[in-house]
Amino acid sequence: MTPDRPRFEFRLHKTDGKARLGTLALKRGDIRTPAFMPVGTAATVKAMKPQDVRATGADIILGNTYHLMLRPGAERVARLGGLHGFMGWDRPILTDSGGYQVMSLSELTKRSEEGVSFASHLDGSRHMMSPERSMEIQRLLGSDIVMAFDELVPTTSTREVQDAAMERSMRWAVRSREAFLSGHDHAQQAAQFGIQQGALDPELRGRSAEALLKLGFDGYAVGGLAVGEGQAAMFGVLDYAPDMLPADRPRYLMGVGKPDDIVGAVERGIDMFDCVLPTRSGRTGQAFTREGPINIRNARFAEDQGPLDPECACPVCKGWSRAYLHHLVRAGEILGAMLMTEHNLAFYQALMADLRAAIGAGTLTAFATTFRARYGAARGS
Amino acid sequence: MTPDRPRFEFRLHKTDGKARLGTLALKRGDIRTPAFMPVGTAATVKAMKPQDVRATGADIILGNTYHLMLRPGAERVARLGGLHGFMGWDRPILTDSGGYQVMSLSELTKRSEEGVSFASHLDGSRHMMSPERSMEIQRLLGSDIVMAFDELVPTTSTREVQDAAMERSMRWAVRSREAFLSGHDHAQQAAQFGIQQGALDPELRGRSAEALLKLGFDGYAVGGLAVGEGQAAMFGVLDYAPDMLPADRPRYLMGVGKPDDIVGAVERGIDMFDCVLPTRSGRTGQAFTREGPINIRNARFAEDQGPLDPECACPVCKGWSRAYLHHLVRAGEILGAMLMTEHNLAFYQALMADLRAAIGAGTLTAFATTFRARYGAARGS
Repeated sequence: MTPDRPRFEFRLHKTDGKARLGTLALKRGDIRTPAFMPVGTAATVKAMKPQDVRATGADIILGNTYHLMLRPGAERVARLGGLHGFMGWDRPILTDSGGYQVMSLSELTKRSEEGVSFASHLDGSRHMMSPERSMEIQRLLGSDIVMAFDELVPTTSTREVQDAAMERSMRWAVRSREAFLSGHDHAQQAAQFGIQQGALDPELRGRSAEALLKLGFDGYAVGGLAVGEGQAAMFGVLDYAPDMLPADRPRYLMGVGKPDDIVGAVERGIDMFDCVLPTRSGRTGQAFTREGPINIRNARFAEDQGPLDPECACPVCKGWSRAYLHHLVRAGEILGAMLMTEHNLAFYQALMADLRAAIGAGTLTAFATTFRARYGAARGS
Repeated sequence: MTPDRPRFEFRLHKTDGKARLGTLALKRGDIRTPAFMPVGTAATVKAMKPQDVRATGADIILGNTYHLMLRPGAERVARLGGLHGFMGWDRPILTDSGGYQVMSLSELTKRSEEGVSFASHLDGSRHMMSPERSMEIQRLLGSDIVMAFDELVPTTSTREVQDAAMERSMRWAVRSREAFLSGHDHAQQAAQFGIQQGALDPELRGRSAEALLKLGFDGYAVGGLAVGEGQAAMFGVLDYAPDMLPADRPRYLMGVGKPDDIVGAVERGIDMFDCVLPTRSGRTGQAFTREGPINIRNARFAEDQGPLDPECACPVCKGWSRAYLHHLVRAGEILGAMLMTEHNLAFYQALMADLRAAIGAGTLTAFATTFRARYGAARGS
């Protein structure tokens, strides 16, 4: 934490179409945008040391409020000096609100205007989550970017249900904003993002944006996407939803996504992303390459002496062969999960660096076209 | 592989009582003795990158012939350029003969004078292991120290069975030596160790040593110990068995052991050790400290902000608290296994460095007495 750094500053350096090249400056460091945030669910980016996460090029990571409140507990993390010191990551951390996990992972949930009562998926213990409690937990963790608490309903819900959930989310946004600003010390160190809801409906999205803008959040997330609606429907929303949010504030697409999702979303004006895909798929043997994903367990890699991706400069591709990674993953070795995760995170960060360079050079359309042709072609082969 | 380095050279720098300070020089590097060799069963020291294994202070690692012959297969490793390149470790590797694992891990074993026929524990496929096949596999892997193939019988066997197994092991030692020397290129790059057998019987140990010495191995292992006989019985054998082996050759105690086992064995003239204990116990939450082992899962560590071992200089102790490691291990996080393993290997290597320094200074007895008092006291508390 550097006292003379800004609490929050978003500088836009260049645009290319709707895509934006920027820097988000926070107390704990700068975030080059468009940015990808590796997910560190339980106070660890799984199978990675923090310094190795940083070495892949990550400027910020994400922590999960729901997981951390249950284990080791937000008050405990606070007593131990906060999430940064606890896990050994001194750069910015964005924490989600816990809303998504409460409503998707926990059991026996009961929703009310007050919030959500639920049973822990770990031990069945009962907890109450509300805008106020979510903000308190994120403050106890020492989050640098605090997310508002919102309500999630299935994309297959009726418009009436979507409307009601969005309206409740906007009432919860008011309470989230008030709760954040009342935590004085933390509010002077951290930023807070509101979350636009409204599913696939432009009118709902518009009302949601309008409600959020009155609250003056530091940044805005496009929420409720990447939950099974498919890329075309998601891009359909991204064709208009980011334009409803202020141009001088960062826009964060939560839970996205596949590399081609990210490229398309950057073209549509999104600045920040998070997703478990590079880490989770690394643990199951999927590697990302510039010619599409490969499953390293496949027998054709058993004696392949090449690197995971010939164009990758990461330590894994410099140090070990596909044959070795095939062996490790097949044998269930921890080192397999470690190396596959490291490569995948490096791949994602290299993609973000390429996107930033293309926006800077005004060549994003050409970059995206070439990327899709190579990445998509191999997937079908 | 450096052409101008010796194939094998063992220099004794100093003795303190029966303990020896030395350097074992091989084509791929020097090994400071007494030395501890981390176990890299399946072409990986579990949960560790090779460079991090090296950073703990390891000069040499061990590879398992049995595991590697079954997966990925010795011929495949050879086609991929050998074990060193495959796993990214360019310093010496000692390979065991596979005998211990064939007789303890595999199924449906049939022993004969020719060797051991067995079914793989992975897929039930049938294989034949013999002195000749073991030497061939170790050559295909590119081992720097090749172990003779011997027969293992339970320590509870009758003296007659022990005698017969020892005598067969000595006949197999003859065949192992001949097979090794007939692999001309490899024999000019690598060293070979014979293995003394004879269980807890001085007369059998003496006959075994006599038989081995005729074959002129580069070094000698004390085999058949650390298989359940207990520390007192093991030290009983070590009180005389190393003296039966030539003073100008390294002595290797296979599969040992706990830190206090190693201290006692060094006092009795052993130069080399290997054991899965620091790596395996790291994955289950046991950490070694100068005041004895601790189980980091214990609730008393939940908010302990101190390092695993306050006297340890390893990156884990410098970077993370017991509370964080407690959280990771309880949550089943891969990073928990990684960091616990790294600390434990660093602890073992620091112990070896301390032992070498004490021998060099002629203060081994004082060091060992202090070590035992501190290490043992906490274990009982």
